[in-house]
Amino acid sequence: MQSQIPDVVIYRLPFYTRVLTSLAEEDIEVVSSQDLGERLQMTPAQIRKDLSYFGKFGRQGKGYNVKQLLGELQQITGLDREWNMVLVGVGRMGNAILDYGKLALRGFRIVAAFDVDPQLIGREIGGVVIQDISELADTIKQQDIKIGVVTVPPSQVQQAVDRLVECGIKAILNYAPFAPRVPQDVRVRRVDPMLALQTATYHLKSLGTT
Amino acid sequence: MQSQIPDVVIYRLPFYTRVLTSLAEEDIEVVSSQDLGERLQMTPAQIRKDLSYFGKFGRQGKGYNVKQLLGELQQITGLDREWNMVLVGVGRMGNAILDYGKLALRGFRIVAAFDVDPQLIGREIGGVVIQDISELADTIKQQDIKIGVVTVPPSQVQQAVDRLVECGIKAILNYAPFAPRVPQDVRVRRVDPMLALQTATYHLKSLGTT
Repeated sequence: MQSQIPDVVIYRLPFYTRVLTSLAEEDIEVVSSQDLGERLQMTPAQIRKDLSYFGKFGRQGKGYNVKQLLGELQQITGLDREWNMVLVGVGRMGNAILDYGKLALRGFRIVAAFDVDPQLIGREIGGVVIQDISELADTIKQQDIKIGVVTVPPSQVQQAVDRLVECGIKAILNYAPFAPRVPQDVRVRRVDPMLALQTATYHLKSLGTT
Repeated sequence: MQSQIPDVVIYRLPFYTRVLTSLAEEDIEVVSSQDLGERLQMTPAQIRKDLSYFGKFGRQGKGYNVKQLLGELQQITGLDREWNMVLVGVGRMGNAILDYGKLALRGFRIVAAFDVDPQLIGREIGGVVIQDISELADTIKQQDIKIGVVTVPPSQVQQAVDRLVECGIKAILNYAPFAPRVPQDVRVRRVDPMLALQTATYHLKSLGTT
């Protein structure tokens, strides 16, 4: 059932978990779809529709139990556990991600990193020792890695993705600005600066300084 | 008036422009809030509410003119023009962004890049010659740069942001996983891998392979 939920709805879930986390931090126990709607600028009907995809939350006239709803959404989106990730390509961007990793990604841990450059292999960055790409399959299996992060140069993205797919990886985080080809059961998610840029330019326009 | 639109609504605009772009490519001229709602999995009421922030679009029972609505939303979000950007910090990540830049960012152009490392200054990456940070203010003025991209090491983020703010920059794209302090009229937008990761783990859960 879950796999039939449209991507556009999935993309809204992090906004719900963010607001619910704030509510929990404010010690608010119950929230109505009206209140939730005000915080998210969404109609109560839209909120009820979104949440109905994921099960029967809340009761008519009673509102949602904040902690319970948050917990269930986190479970549904897999945020109730730790995910091991492998990074492929320890060039400029890969290096920075390893540096930033511990701070950036609550619940997501890069436990292994790979490159083809013999000069890099054996070096440690952010607590991770860079391995030769030939050890990829074994490491993914041994360390129960489910997510691949691809930070190779643009010309090598497809090859890196193919290798990850061969090793059974079904979810890939892609920093390159194009979509590699993958089998139907594999999802490639792009880290996209456009969303941030579009909301930034709106701000500039609204300032009227341009 | 525009500056009163809540951030959560601004963050939804790119989803509208994306769907409207698809509709335009399919040569669909008019779309109802019902049709738009199906593509975005949003209730027609929610769509009308969102768009009402930006003006009077569409007429009762007539639907929205796709090209006109797209054009107006692009104008509102500043996507109807080119934006010049400056990149500060040509380390690993900055380097990769310069490499990827031309492909990645339609409408957004990195026209200058700065670093403090004398070894980097004068080198050309992705068509941009790296300059000494001391030339930052002059270049921003001369090249009509409105957006700063900060890719310095974590410990130098606040300093880099301060320099950009001193030069009059009001919109900053931040790749570091924390928020620097800025004056009220400056917006820092973070390029956040969490959204991509959360939707990736949902996929893994729904596959049932974990």
